[in-house]
Amino acid sequence: MRAIDIIIRKRDGHSLSAEEIDFFIQGAVRGSIPDYQVSAWLMAVLLNGMDRRETVDLTMAIVRSGEQIDLSDISDFVADKHSTGGVGDKTTLVIAPLVAAAGVDVAKISGRGLGFTGGTLDKLESIPGFRTDLSVDEFRAQLQQIGLVVTGQTAELAPADGKLYALRDVTGTVDSLPLIASSIMGKKIAAGADGIVLDVKVGDGAFMQTQEDALALATLMVDIGRGVGRQVRAVISDMHQPLGNAVGNALELVEAMDTLRGGGPADFRRHCLVIAGQMLLLAGQVGSAEEAHSRLESLLDGGQAWAKFREWITVQGGDPAYVDDPALLPTARLIRQVPAPRSGYIARLNARQVGLTSTLLGGGRSKKGDPVDHSVGIVLQAKIGDRVEVGQPLLTIHANDEGQLAEAQRRLLAAYDWSDEPVSPPPLIGQIID
Amino acid sequence: MRAIDIIIRKRDGHSLSAEEIDFFIQGAVRGSIPDYQVSAWLMAVLLNGMDRRETVDLTMAIVRSGEQIDLSDISDFVADKHSTGGVGDKTTLVIAPLVAAAGVDVAKISGRGLGFTGGTLDKLESIPGFRTDLSVDEFRAQLQQIGLVVTGQTAELAPADGKLYALRDVTGTVDSLPLIASSIMGKKIAAGADGIVLDVKVGDGAFMQTQEDALALATLMVDIGRGVGRQVRAVISDMHQPLGNAVGNALELVEAMDTLRGGGPADFRRHCLVIAGQMLLLAGQVGSAEEAHSRLESLLDGGQAWAKFREWITVQGGDPAYVDDPALLPTARLIRQVPAPRSGYIARLNARQVGLTSTLLGGGRSKKGDPVDHSVGIVLQAKIGDRVEVGQPLLTIHANDEGQLAEAQRRLLAAYDWSDEPVSPPPLIGQIID
Repeated sequence: MRAIDIIIRKRDGHSLSAEEIDFFIQGAVRGSIPDYQVSAWLMAVLLNGMDRRETVDLTMAIVRSGEQIDLSDISDFVADKHSTGGVGDKTTLVIAPLVAAAGVDVAKISGRGLGFTGGTLDKLESIPGFRTDLSVDEFRAQLQQIGLVVTGQTAELAPADGKLYALRDVTGTVDSLPLIASSIMGKKIAAGADGIVLDVKVGDGAFMQTQEDALALATLMVDIGRGVGRQVRAVISDMHQPLGNAVGNALELVEAMDTLRGGGPADFRRHCLVIAGQMLLLAGQVGSAEEAHSRLESLLDGGQAWAKFREWITVQGGDPAYVDDPALLPTARLIRQVPAPRSGYIARLNARQVGLTSTLLGGGRSKKGDPVDHSVGIVLQAKIGDRVEVGQPLLTIHANDEGQLAEAQRRLLAAYDWSDEPVSPPPLIGQIID
Repeated sequence: MRAIDIIIRKRDGHSLSAEEIDFFIQGAVRGSIPDYQVSAWLMAVLLNGMDRRETVDLTMAIVRSGEQIDLSDISDFVADKHSTGGVGDKTTLVIAPLVAAAGVDVAKISGRGLGFTGGTLDKLESIPGFRTDLSVDEFRAQLQQIGLVVTGQTAELAPADGKLYALRDVTGTVDSLPLIASSIMGKKIAAGADGIVLDVKVGDGAFMQTQEDALALATLMVDIGRGVGRQVRAVISDMHQPLGNAVGNALELVEAMDTLRGGGPADFRRHCLVIAGQMLLLAGQVGSAEEAHSRLESLLDGGQAWAKFREWITVQGGDPAYVDDPALLPTARLIRQVPAPRSGYIARLNARQVGLTSTLLGGGRSKKGDPVDHSVGIVLQAKIGDRVEVGQPLLTIHANDEGQLAEAQRRLLAAYDWSDEPVSPPPLIGQIID
């Protein structure tokens, strides 16, 4: 088998066999197929597509490129969730301990923020001592100990994904459904979960900009999961405006902790209940979404979710003092409240612009490996559909630099559209694919 | 300007500006744009195409990537020709001295054989001492001295073409009209000719397999030439069977010398007259193709073309003894005549199979840089349309290895189809585009 023949077959619009895909992916990871051949193939895949069967085979080739974690000796059912990325998406911080508190084991490999999106690991690292570099042995041990573990990607797991993504990022081959779906599912499947809930965001603050694209990606990923014998559901959720009110690492952690104690913004709490509810359904712990919600609400309001969160952070190396007293968490030097420039209903609140502004303040990354400032960010006091009077608080900017603060204020005000007539907020939850 | 944005624009089917194309090509040559980005772009170009204007801009970017030879201080009009590659295509060996003998300066950068095609330089190097590595200064000096020079590609000329071709060869991006046309025309334009005749081969022994593809390539190249102010004509010519009778380096040289002395196979002589005639027309030396043919025939039959050939070989370092006595040229150890396996008319004589068999015998290259055996090859005693009786001579194999000879015989006999009814040979010359 030769790499060039596989490139030419995809160039000419043919379906590749499982053997061809596996040969190509393992060759790419081992370096026997050079980057210039891999990138030509990626462009051919982007332009000519892959069918479902090829995408399943690509996913499994990515899984086979590295270690596969087997958790079956530790747990009968391990749940995982994945968000396609958004702004203010601190969902994992709440869901992971909430679902674990409901008695379902949760083991998750998480990511970092890039561009306009935040990352769970960055938010967790606001807590001094919290470890995101667990080895596979540590990952398994912690799951066994407390039924809950969230750590960063290891080099051993699905190395083909890291290899392909690095090339896609610089060759204009990111925006391909089969490449996106296999990248996500390859990592999830390698990490060993039995049931996976996919949170597919749609809107200007997400990678999928349209309902159609989001639905296509969600359906494809559910199909892949089914094709390899995992239980998978997907929830289409809104990312036209940030999720919850806080955007920024420590600010989001605080909002997640509020939610774990029974408070938090209504939209964010509801979103967590929906995703966590689907995980409970997959685990067979409940018979309906309604039953799941009622059980999960009692865990949030009764303190069990919070207790699980505190245990998790502590066991994973985090200093519990910062959890018990969030005032100890990193705080920005400059905190400025921005008043509404006019009276009216908020008609638009561009999530991407808010995410990029958080990155501008230092809270995110323009490129991989950049450091992040955990203290900075934005807290919204009103969202789409809310009526605000001129001069009332609209949002608060947390910054460490006057120039950045001024630029952030200018950009954020431009992210709003206003209406004199009442406006309906975009529906938080769309279709659920199972 | 960023390479990735240019890749994405072509990926999305947009036309690239001259500035974008130049930025990309110069970056590729300098190495500031890495190979993996270049190959992704090449695949996007292959799949999404380029319009005429982009192809002209790509050609000129290839020209600008290196030195451009200016011959205007030496000659008022320099003619060049280019064949898209075929089997038994020794045309340059005859045309170059023939056109020079007619008083038109000829300066040509030539190539080597690869795969099923032969190369002019390999054929010339059958003559001990003949130099194919002239510097630009030597190239200019010889043109001034004798009005005729043919040498190999230098690193200084159109380096982008070498760079792109090396990547295309291993990434499945060879078969793209704009890439093929700009590659040929970039080198031709950089080499300084005022008038260029393109010999576009069509058939199984050529890169273009169909009339439509050959016509599209020919038209595109003529357009490019016009777009940059050069005089260009293209001749579509047959490559369903080898041109002439000899295939192999020294064997083809001998056949070319026969032709230069007024002999040679009729099809090959006629082909040379057509191409050379177009060069005389471009140079304004004649008023019609008929006038050109009559003049060129007298130069072949009167000895002037031969004299120019002998002068050329000698001035360029070749030992004239080998020209005066071709028996001194490299000769194969095993020469076997293969009789016709049946009586009938030859209906097919697959040129590609003959070319590949010559390579198998050692006369060609499977990959760049391989050495070639100048002595081996094939001489056909009959061609398509000829009537042959069983047991009559069909072809002669020149080999240096018994095993290779046997395998060559098996393959060559499989390259023929036979008919009991008379068969018309494929027309030698097709459309002429000017």
